[in-house]
Amino acid sequence: VPQIEFWFEFGSNYSYLSVMRIEDAARARGVAIAWKPFLLGPILRALGMETSPFLLQKEKGAYVWQDMERQCRKYGLQWTRPSAFPRLAVLPMRVALLGAERPWIGAFSRKVMELNFALDRDINEPDIIAPVLTALGLAAAEILRESQTDAIKARLRAQTEQARTKGIFGAPTFFVGDAMFWGNDRLDDALLFAAEQKAAGANGEASPPLSR
Amino acid sequence: VPQIEFWFEFGSNYSYLSVMRIEDAARARGVAIAWKPFLLGPILRALGMETSPFLLQKEKGAYVWQDMERQCRKYGLQWTRPSAFPRLAVLPMRVALLGAERPWIGAFSRKVMELNFALDRDINEPDIIAPVLTALGLAAAEILRESQTDAIKARLRAQTEQARTKGIFGAPTFFVGDAMFWGNDRLDDALLFAAEQKAAGANGEASPPLSR
Repeated sequence: VPQIEFWFEFGSNYSYLSVMRIEDAARARGVAIAWKPFLLGPILRALGMETSPFLLQKEKGAYVWQDMERQCRKYGLQWTRPSAFPRLAVLPMRVALLGAERPWIGAFSRKVMELNFALDRDINEPDIIAPVLTALGLAAAEILRESQTDAIKARLRAQTEQARTKGIFGAPTFFVGDAMFWGNDRLDDALLFAAEQKAAGANGEASPPLSR
Repeated sequence: VPQIEFWFEFGSNYSYLSVMRIEDAARARGVAIAWKPFLLGPILRALGMETSPFLLQKEKGAYVWQDMERQCRKYGLQWTRPSAFPRLAVLPMRVALLGAERPWIGAFSRKVMELNFALDRDINEPDIIAPVLTALGLAAAEILRESQTDAIKARLRAQTEQARTKGIFGAPTFFVGDAMFWGNDRLDDALLFAAEQKAAGANGEASPPLSR
């Protein structure tokens, strides 16, 4: 099965758009998703940015909110501009890392994104995240405890460092093999690329159609 | 007729994608184009950037070239990474300002973009631009002379200042009324917005579907 790596951050508004639609879109293309939660803050700081470029560049920031409103309408998603941006999300990111290969990762991630970008809730609070896990039929207390272990904290730091070495500079970012696609606007291109790569392989061709 | 403002720069690689396809795409939607050449350099400098963000952020820069290769393949456009980037384009920008409301603006702009991004030529040279005008059946010498008058130089500076006051921070940028759309990825959204606004007006509705 062809695969797409999905690098995302719960604090990232454009990650919201991709989290909400990637499972349906990938299923339609027959592509498997490797969920790759990482922390965007350390990546931006390594690039010399103290915070989101949407705050550092006020012109771009002003634009982003009108763009998000239209994009959410286009995709049929609820939208509320968060009262805190970028919102800290280290707690749910750790939970996502814990669940990255479990069947609930998609549903969990969509619910966290809705809490941030539709309901304007503080997603870094255990009291907000626990009910999400419970509603999915999961052992919330146990998962929250495990997500706060040193092992998971270290793994999230390591995955963030891996994002940096792969050349990631924003979220969401997709990889199909070595090919990098940046931004929700490239999700469909990336899925098509993954599907075509597979098809080319099946035909015995050496390279995918888009990398010739 | 609904209208879209198209703010573009011949040195901007993402403007290349939009210049090549906007006339066909706008015609298909029944939308008129107001061509708005402006200089991106002074805009970026006003935002504190000495040059293109694709040079200032090397990770983003590395990505942009693989993205451009795939985008050009998607749109069926030729692509050669320019040996000079960002390429100075003040001469053809002045010609474009002179021709902005003339029927040759689209064909002229496409040819300049091909010279920069498909043929890797120095588009700031009169010897390169004159044959483009001649091939369009125009009086090249006269147009080049007029484009270098103080009046045209001042108009291009004024149009660039207008871009800044409108909140433009990159190219291409589209406006439909007050609604701003940034990047080639938003061209189709912007055209649809323009067409729907017109349709809503025809139905006697007060506001366009996307701005409710």
